[in-house]
This record gives sequence, C-alpha cells and structure tokens, in this order.
Amino acid sequence: MTTLVFGHKSPDTDSTGSPIIWAWFLNDVVGVPAKPVLLGEPNTEALFMLDHWKLDKPEIIEDVADDQPVVIVDTNNPAELPANINGADITAIIDHHKLVGGLETKGPIHMVIEPLACTATIMWKLIGKDMAKMPDAVKGAMLTCILSDTLEFRSPTTTQEDKAVAWSLAEQLGINISDYAAAMFAAKSDVSSFSEAELLRMDSKEFEVDGKQLRVSVLETTSPAAVLDRKDALMAAMPGVATEDGADQVLLFVVDILNEEATMLVPNELTKTIAEKSFGAAVSGDTVVLPGIMSRKKQIIPNLKV
Amino acid sequence: MTTLVFGHKSPDTDSTGSPIIWAWFLNDVVGVPAKPVLLGEPNTEALFMLDHWKLDKPEIIEDVADDQPVVIVDTNNPAELPANINGADITAIIDHHKLVGGLETKGPIHMVIEPLACTATIMWKLIGKDMAKMPDAVKGAMLTCILSDTLEFRSPTTTQEDKAVAWSLAEQLGINISDYAAAMFAAKSDVSSFSEAELLRMDSKEFEVDGKQLRVSVLETTSPAAVLDRKDALMAAMPGVATEDGADQVLLFVVDILNEEATMLVPNELTKTIAEKSFGAAVSGDTVVLPGIMSRKKQIIPNLKV
Repeated sequence: MTTLVFGHKSPDTDSTGSPIIWAWFLNDVVGVPAKPVLLGEPNTEALFMLDHWKLDKPEIIEDVADDQPVVIVDTNNPAELPANINGADITAIIDHHKLVGGLETKGPIHMVIEPLACTATIMWKLIGKDMAKMPDAVKGAMLTCILSDTLEFRSPTTTQEDKAVAWSLAEQLGINISDYAAAMFAAKSDVSSFSEAELLRMDSKEFEVDGKQLRVSVLETTSPAAVLDRKDALMAAMPGVATEDGADQVLLFVVDILNEEATMLVPNELTKTIAEKSFGAAVSGDTVVLPGIMSRKKQIIPNLKV
Repeated sequence: MTTLVFGHKSPDTDSTGSPIIWAWFLNDVVGVPAKPVLLGEPNTEALFMLDHWKLDKPEIIEDVADDQPVVIVDTNNPAELPANINGADITAIIDHHKLVGGLETKGPIHMVIEPLACTATIMWKLIGKDMAKMPDAVKGAMLTCILSDTLEFRSPTTTQEDKAVAWSLAEQLGINISDYAAAMFAAKSDVSSFSEAELLRMDSKEFEVDGKQLRVSVLETTSPAAVLDRKDALMAAMPGVATEDGADQVLLFVVDILNEEATMLVPNELTKTIAEKSFGAAVSGDTVVLPGIMSRKKQIIPNLKV
C-alpha cells in the first residue's frame, strides 16, 4: 500500500515541500512506494515554490483510512492532523516542534524531532549521502522550505545547520538567495485574493493560555501595509472566526520580514491586556508594534499571558 | 543545573545502562553536566553489569522537581516515569518503543525513536565517531544492554544493527559473547531473594486490552524451573498485586531464553481465555507452553485478546 506523506492542516511551504522531499526519498532511495499529499490548500508562497520548480501540486485529502501507512512531517499535534490519524499506521514522524502528546503508534516507529528551524533541514541530515541522488526540483523545494521557515535566516529559530544546508543547496542550484527569497516573500505577501477570515486562519495555531483558548495567527509579509490597510475588517472578522473555531480570541501578528518587527492588532481589552502582559508593550490605539518579534514558536507562544 | 538521565521504573539492564551511556556522552563529549539516575531498584542482571564493569550504582530518585532538566531514555510512557515528568524540562527522549502519547515538552527537543531492539544501539548511532572516546566500562554497559534486550540475538526484536554494534563492542573489549551472556542470564535467573509479589512486578507493564487492565509480566530466565517451582505461590500472589496496582489481572510469562519458549501461568478462566484467544493455545492445567514466544513488545502485546 502506498505510504502517504503529509504535514499539517493549512499547509505552508515547509508542510508542502517536506512531504515532497520525503516521498521522493521513500520512492527513489528506500524503495517504499510513497505519495506526498496535503491536508488543505497551500499558501501563496508554497504555490510559488511548486510553480518555480515545476513540481506537481499534491492532492488534497480529507482524512486517512484505518491502517493506511502514513509519514507525518512538520507537526506532531493531532489537532493539526486528519481526524482518524490514530487509526492510521504511522510509520514515521519527522518534526521540529515541541512534543504535544496525543499521537499513538501501533509499534516502535522512526521518529525524529530536532530543534532546527525547518523540517527539511532534518531531512537533509537523515538523507545523508543520498542527497547526491536528489533531483534539482526536490533540492529547490528543500531550499525554499528553509528560506521560508527561517525568513531568510532572520528568524531567531535559525540554526547554523539550517544556514549551512541552504547555502549548500543554493550553490548547487545556482540560486541567488536574496533574489529568490525576495520573490518567495513577494508571493507570500500577495494576500489580495483572500478574505479576512481566510487571512486569520492562514497560518494559525490554537493554544490554551491561562484558561483561555487563543487562536494565534501570524502573517509574515514584506508588505505589512497591504494587510494593515485592512485592519478594521480583520478586527471585525475576529469574533466570528473565534466562535466558529471554538476559541475565545483570535490574535493576529503581522510580521514585517524586512524590518524584523510584528504589528499586533488590538481590537479589545483582552488583546490589550495580552499585549501588555506578554510583551511589556505600551498600547494606545488598535495596533501595537513589537520590535524584533518574528517567531510564534520562539517569541510569541513562550511569552503569552492573559 | 545538572541534567538527570533516566529510564523507566523497575529498571532492567537497558534502563540502567543507557542512562550511564548518555550521561557520559553529555558530560565528556557534549560538555553538558549530567548524571545517570534510577527510578527504582535495578534487577539482578543490571546489578551484574554494574559490578562486572565497576560502574557506580546510580542514585535512585523518587520524583523530579519543576524545571529540572532531564533526558528520558528507553520509554516515552508517562506511566513509567516520575509523577511530575511534565513539570520537568525534558531536553531529549531516546527510545525504541511505540509512541504512547502523554509526554509534553516546553519547546522543540531532541527526540529519537527507532525500531531497534535496544536503546543503547540508537545511542551508538547518535554518538557516531565519538565512540572512540568512550571508556571501556561504558562500552561494556552498552554491550550488556544489547545482549540483554536481544536475549543474545534470540529475540525477534533483534536487528542487524543491534548485532553489528554488539559484535564490534565485544571485539574491542575482548569479550566472548556466549560466555558473557551466559553469566548475565545466570544473574538474571537468580531470583531466589525476591518475593512472589516482587517477581510479578519485576519486568511488568500495564496495558488495556478489550476493556481489561492487564499487568503483563515477563521473567526471562535460563532456569525456568526455579520460577515454575514457585507457580502456586505466584498464582496466589496475583490477585493481591492486581488489586494494589489497579489491574484486573496479572499475566506472567516465564521466558525460557535457551529453549526459546514461554510458559504462561493459567490460574483462572480469564487467563485461560486469554491464552486460547491470543496464542491459539490448548490449555489443560495451570500452565501452558507457548513455543517461540520471547518478546512482550513484538509477540505478546500485539496478540493479546480477552
């Protein structure tokens, strides 16, 4: 039976590219039939990657059947995975997030979590000398994943290993990293076709903080003005999204990749309190700029207080 | 703060030796202060290993403090770990069991699970070329762990990697594997000093099967007669142990290492049904021999039916 390889719901570049990388490795190196799939529509940066490297857009699946062999990449959180994930035959997990608990496997599996910025960097290490066999298009996906997750090495999650792999791949592919990353970020920043509710859910994870269920949304962009021009409509859409998704509040952080700062929307007293308690921010008005804040994983979540 | 490295409660050889191996690696190679500890009294084979290689018996701890840095080896099951494990700062997990769920980490950590017979074999891979720096006593612990978990390569969990590492270590240490394993198994088989309740809990894990809570106990021995001579007392002790530990039934499998078979005790109708349904055994009397059954992980648990 063909192994399905997928990342999390609301696929970003790493959750779109890493399944492609690992399915190639399973098919062409290990000799296990495998297919990359998606759990939702990829974001505009992921679509740019597929288009640039002429990779097929993976099929989008709704759920997994009992005993379906699967490899999970870029998450270990059941909430971000198909409803029947624990009914599937999970054969491997490759991730770079904290262990959440809740996934169960039928037997001992291959599982690797490493504190690197990008799943693709872990795969580079696991693939080892077989990297020599990797087609350029798959190497291109790997490079795109790393530049995306590190925000071209600006994110504090970036490690020396992520950088070294990206530099090596760029050299092999004849890619100028600055130019290529600029094109990636321009694609990610083109959010004109999305509704406010779609933007609030595009790169979003739920966390419980001090008894409150928070949907913590991030939009990484080189054109923050294009998002912030819509701030009134975004704030107006927050209560509806929160209610539909069973959250108490949506938080939106607009990350300015080039200026290395985030603007948080402050529609009400709760978000004002969160901004003040979590980031020591002095809030006046309905937005607040948080200098240096780039990473949900490393800077936003660990500091959140309600 | 010194990192504590430990395996599961009721430490066997792998759960005693692997913390020693990894604490050495952290201290002497990585440069992180670390200390191996135990969550209970080690079994007689583990004590043999410590004595043979002149290794200090690690301190036994009761629980871990909040934010205590810890590395967990040879399990990922919170039920087999200190009560406050999720309050600790788990910095790494190295294991070869199925993912159970329930552990949570504060951030992305180093986590490796591989389907090998022995945690120490995974460590050998992770340590890589730094194996050259490992003292003989620690290499001896590594060899002992592998021979113990593979029952000298007889267990169906044994992989080529486990064998290759053990052979290489034995050669470096000038150890004759047959002689050394025989001494190990003799130590493990000397259970004369233990009460029946202690024997039932010595190498035991709880599993829920078809709504029943089963304490599945294994005694690996080269002298099955020494255990089976005490079968009446063992069966008499089962209800008390089950009640104290919140289980519906204790199952005891006496694994004859040399003859590669297990004898299951059959004190009542429930255990008779389990023996018949799970292993297709024809039961008459209060014991049943299960040819070829050596591994709880690979042969007993996956087949258990009530």
